[in-house]
Amino acid sequence: MLKGILSVLLVLVTLSSAMGKPEKTTPKKEERIPQTLSRGWGDQLIWAQTYEEALFWSRSKNKPLMVIFHLEDCPHSQALKKAFAEDKDIQKLADDDFVILNLVYETTDKHLSPDGQYVPRILFVDPSMTVRADITGRYANRLYAYEPADMKLLLSNMQRALKFLKTEL
Amino acid sequence: MLKGILSVLLVLVTLSSAMGKPEKTTPKKEERIPQTLSRGWGDQLIWAQTYEEALFWSRSKNKPLMVIFHLEDCPHSQALKKAFAEDKDIQKLADDDFVILNLVYETTDKHLSPDGQYVPRILFVDPSMTVRADITGRYANRLYAYEPADMKLLLSNMQRALKFLKTEL
Repeated sequence: MLKGILSVLLVLVTLSSAMGKPEKTTPKKEERIPQTLSRGWGDQLIWAQTYEEALFWSRSKNKPLMVIFHLEDCPHSQALKKAFAEDKDIQKLADDDFVILNLVYETTDKHLSPDGQYVPRILFVDPSMTVRADITGRYANRLYAYEPADMKLLLSNMQRALKFLKTEL
Repeated sequence: MLKGILSVLLVLVTLSSAMGKPEKTTPKKEERIPQTLSRGWGDQLIWAQTYEEALFWSRSKNKPLMVIFHLEDCPHSQALKKAFAEDKDIQKLADDDFVILNLVYETTDKHLSPDGQYVPRILFVDPSMTVRADITGRYANRLYAYEPADMKLLLSNMQRALKFLKTEL
């Protein structure tokens, strides 16, 4: 009798076990993976959703804002994203000292496209809400573009954005 | 003997069952759960990130836009979210026929706050980019507020937003 109960229990628990494991369930055809705000640029970072939200956090936390414009189907954006997400120094600095936002659509603020709208491009904004058009990458024709090989430059630009802020205080 | 094996198996399976359930795992202190665009309003739906993006999709797909303003620490928002996420008719209609956006920060567009900024509130926008200020809930002092008990009204308002669109075509 006890054996019988145990067997039933075992089946039940096995069933609930299989149902409870997210990594082993094969998603239904219609099941979608919830979209994340990080979009792969750093799942462990706290991302702002909108420019308005990012500006609010930048002012209230007194941290510079880093805005990344990119596109899911742009190979340059994808390559930069990979380098950005894998760079521990950049991820740590972004997490500690920046408000971060990644966008696949342009905002209505033209200050965020000083030399036009293209992807990928990265702009810094001061907590005073001034776009730091002076912090640029190494391409004369696309001042705010970065490539995967430019991670050191990007890191030093992030430090510049921070330094500027601190000297102003 | 068989009973003994079963008992051990039962313990193991129970353990793995408990470990497999996401609500029971305690994440490491430093590990964060990636933020989702749905924020719990329907993980299986495709959410726009920003108002600009939502307007773009609304126009290009010729679908009305539903904008939900809410706050994570507002109990009314939380209660409405639960009812919204659990209502299969609303989820299906939203998925099939709407562009959807949920925001925890206000936009700069004042048309989205015809009677002020409060949460929770739900506004509909036509693909022609006209805010449907005529589609309201049942509270005279907060025209665009809904409560969990108002899901039928919300569903019929969604149908109204669709009907209007169709009669214009």
